[in-house]
Amino acid sequence: MERALCASLVARAAARGTQGAAAEGEDRVCVYGWVAQVRRLGGLTFLVVRDRSGTAQVVLDREDLAAGPIPPREAIVRVSGWLRPEPRAPGGVELRAQHLEVLVEPAQPPSLPLYRDHLDASLEVVLAQRALSLRHPRERAAFAVQAALVRGLRRYLDACGFTEVHTPKLTGTATEGGSEVFAVDYFGRRAYLAQSPQLYKQLLVGAGFERVYEVGAAYRAEPHDTARHLNEYISLDVESELFGGGGTGPLLELERGLLRAMFTQVETDAGDALDRFGVRALPDPAAAVAVTLAEALEGIGRTHLDPEAERLLGEWLGPLVFVTDWPVAQRPFYAMERADAPGLTHSFDLLLHGLEVTTGGQREHRPGPLRAMMAQRGLNVGAFAAYLAAFDTGMPPHGGFAIGLERLTAQLLGIRNVRRASLFPRDRSRLEP
Amino acid sequence: MERALCASLVARAAARGTQGAAAEGEDRVCVYGWVAQVRRLGGLTFLVVRDRSGTAQVVLDREDLAAGPIPPREAIVRVSGWLRPEPRAPGGVELRAQHLEVLVEPAQPPSLPLYRDHLDASLEVVLAQRALSLRHPRERAAFAVQAALVRGLRRYLDACGFTEVHTPKLTGTATEGGSEVFAVDYFGRRAYLAQSPQLYKQLLVGAGFERVYEVGAAYRAEPHDTARHLNEYISLDVESELFGGGGTGPLLELERGLLRAMFTQVETDAGDALDRFGVRALPDPAAAVAVTLAEALEGIGRTHLDPEAERLLGEWLGPLVFVTDWPVAQRPFYAMERADAPGLTHSFDLLLHGLEVTTGGQREHRPGPLRAMMAQRGLNVGAFAAYLAAFDTGMPPHGGFAIGLERLTAQLLGIRNVRRASLFPRDRSRLEP
Repeated sequence: MERALCASLVARAAARGTQGAAAEGEDRVCVYGWVAQVRRLGGLTFLVVRDRSGTAQVVLDREDLAAGPIPPREAIVRVSGWLRPEPRAPGGVELRAQHLEVLVEPAQPPSLPLYRDHLDASLEVVLAQRALSLRHPRERAAFAVQAALVRGLRRYLDACGFTEVHTPKLTGTATEGGSEVFAVDYFGRRAYLAQSPQLYKQLLVGAGFERVYEVGAAYRAEPHDTARHLNEYISLDVESELFGGGGTGPLLELERGLLRAMFTQVETDAGDALDRFGVRALPDPAAAVAVTLAEALEGIGRTHLDPEAERLLGEWLGPLVFVTDWPVAQRPFYAMERADAPGLTHSFDLLLHGLEVTTGGQREHRPGPLRAMMAQRGLNVGAFAAYLAAFDTGMPPHGGFAIGLERLTAQLLGIRNVRRASLFPRDRSRLEP
Repeated sequence: MERALCASLVARAAARGTQGAAAEGEDRVCVYGWVAQVRRLGGLTFLVVRDRSGTAQVVLDREDLAAGPIPPREAIVRVSGWLRPEPRAPGGVELRAQHLEVLVEPAQPPSLPLYRDHLDASLEVVLAQRALSLRHPRERAAFAVQAALVRGLRRYLDACGFTEVHTPKLTGTATEGGSEVFAVDYFGRRAYLAQSPQLYKQLLVGAGFERVYEVGAAYRAEPHDTARHLNEYISLDVESELFGGGGTGPLLELERGLLRAMFTQVETDAGDALDRFGVRALPDPAAAVAVTLAEALEGIGRTHLDPEAERLLGEWLGPLVFVTDWPVAQRPFYAMERADAPGLTHSFDLLLHGLEVTTGGQREHRPGPLRAMMAQRGLNVGAFAAYLAAFDTGMPPHGGFAIGLERLTAQLLGIRNVRRASLFPRDRSRLEP
């Protein structure tokens, strides 16, 4: 019987000591993958075969095979044979192949240098040839980390009684009343792409779900061209009742616990991926500092928390910094004003390595003050009729936050341009591939 | 010390025998929730308090409480006291409240009858007042089932080596070359909302992920107004290498295993929700029948598999029917033609209770035949340059399928209009709430 094996298991077979029988050549195994390297050395032909898990060293064991035509790089092959201890192979094991089948021979060679530790190409080229650049293990590793972050989020929130929900991205009004929205032709009417699921997740808390989260796309029609903005990104949105008491305290506690679970999931599931980025340890969310915006600005001697100020704050206070107590004027209409400090809100941002990755806070749940705030902002209250109706029939105290998934991934891994933490990023000039 | 308890745990405390101490009144507990019923009976005041988990019977134990003002229905309250065995309460336990705090008193009473087993209101009203209608436990239960389906999907696919991905919904070209797409004004250019992640998920398989899945929105600008169409829906997209052999066989096997895991997750996590819909058992995916389209049509004496024919097929062959071997002309350009039966493709639909919930198949991975098929369909090959480039540098044999989440939920629960399996459905006339 022949077992199909992941490439990474070949290298680990001996290292882990769990595949002893295989390492001693008892089991016949096969590996499917892409030819990453071919070397002929002293009458032997060596291949490095790459698959989703890593790479395996293969030596063509039969004389006719070794002397025969060798597949080009990026050919997709099936190799089968026995695992043998080989001190010079990565992990101390190689696959001695008795059979080599070329499943797919590429019509064209790859136009990117895929075989070094780093993909040495411009961002422009990496993104234009995304289907090819992602074959580089380090490029792909960012998305193993990303998937683990989301897995950790779901497991944690599921265990805390949250329900995962899906809200529409097509809406009849601009979600938060802003102007930077994409317009859609919807059967002759004008619709908009949601800037966030904010109002929907609030409605769902009030509809009795109490605790909800969503992993979904959010759209910002901002013409920015910076290393930290995407026009379409994945927002990890969390919203919860605050039955036990309002303010930012319970939300900061929730996010600390959530991030710890997410980071642990990454360390457990994507340790190899972290290694590729040279990340030895992820920051400890339990150690995240919380300061008010006023304290933060005073501490760094600035008047606004612009990107440079965020960076300084990170240098001063560490990798994870909650900034609380934002002025009413700097938050959306639904932010809850502090009763004990008028003009300030129960709200926060979270900076990771000096960049904002989360915005959150308690929301105004009383219909009177909510309408007043909307009127003060000059919002068309009529366009929010369905939203306000839910508050009129009683909305519990609640709050939440949103984490930008690509930014979180990029900041954790030290990826300098957030586009590279998106599989197919969308920016002002990029709609393809 | 006082423990906050879910309402459902009050009823279950004695039934399960696991909360013995609480049931005997040792622990003080509190419950937060919405007042669903108020009754005064023989000098006592009873409340039914509803939260995300279910309902709890509360009796106001103190004379002054019982005689005082009682909160209106839908008031949000905090009640605290002791659990006591009470044979007449649901589950045999009630909460004897020493304290009652009204957290939120609604400004308006609910305009929907929320307190019977079924929400007795027209679909139009249920959807127009979605934030209110979802307070009905049965309305909300569909989304507990939906969340469990997605949880089961992720767990199964994660364990099978799949990577969860997020692909853009904004694209520069209409995904599959169709005309029924929504157009977006993208910084003065024309973009489209993706009809599916089809081409992206294929690219990612070829980029070395090998196995990917996505839970994301898909858009169809079809002006249909039927009980089974949504213009924005959640597509569960799965795509995998077919290293071990092509055809529909491995894909049907994958979907059978996947559905079984999803259904088991529902039974485990959302048994109460199934009860509310009177669903005793979910169908067994292992028992799903597979027939060719030709066999199916002959069997029911029809020429096309229209909705009525799908229904007949379900009656004939059972709750889960795979229909395979669709003609080339009835499938998209990327469908793999059968070498042994030209004109037919390695493709399938899955019907659940007589309605299509999945479309899938093996894809053409050879760049030559793929270009030929695109040309034959009159597609603008230039618009697919990035897609085709990936095939030129070598694409493994692969295939996959997509499951419509709302349809799956509706069919499993016997919900007749798919809109009711969507939190905030989008159809031709509905962009709000």
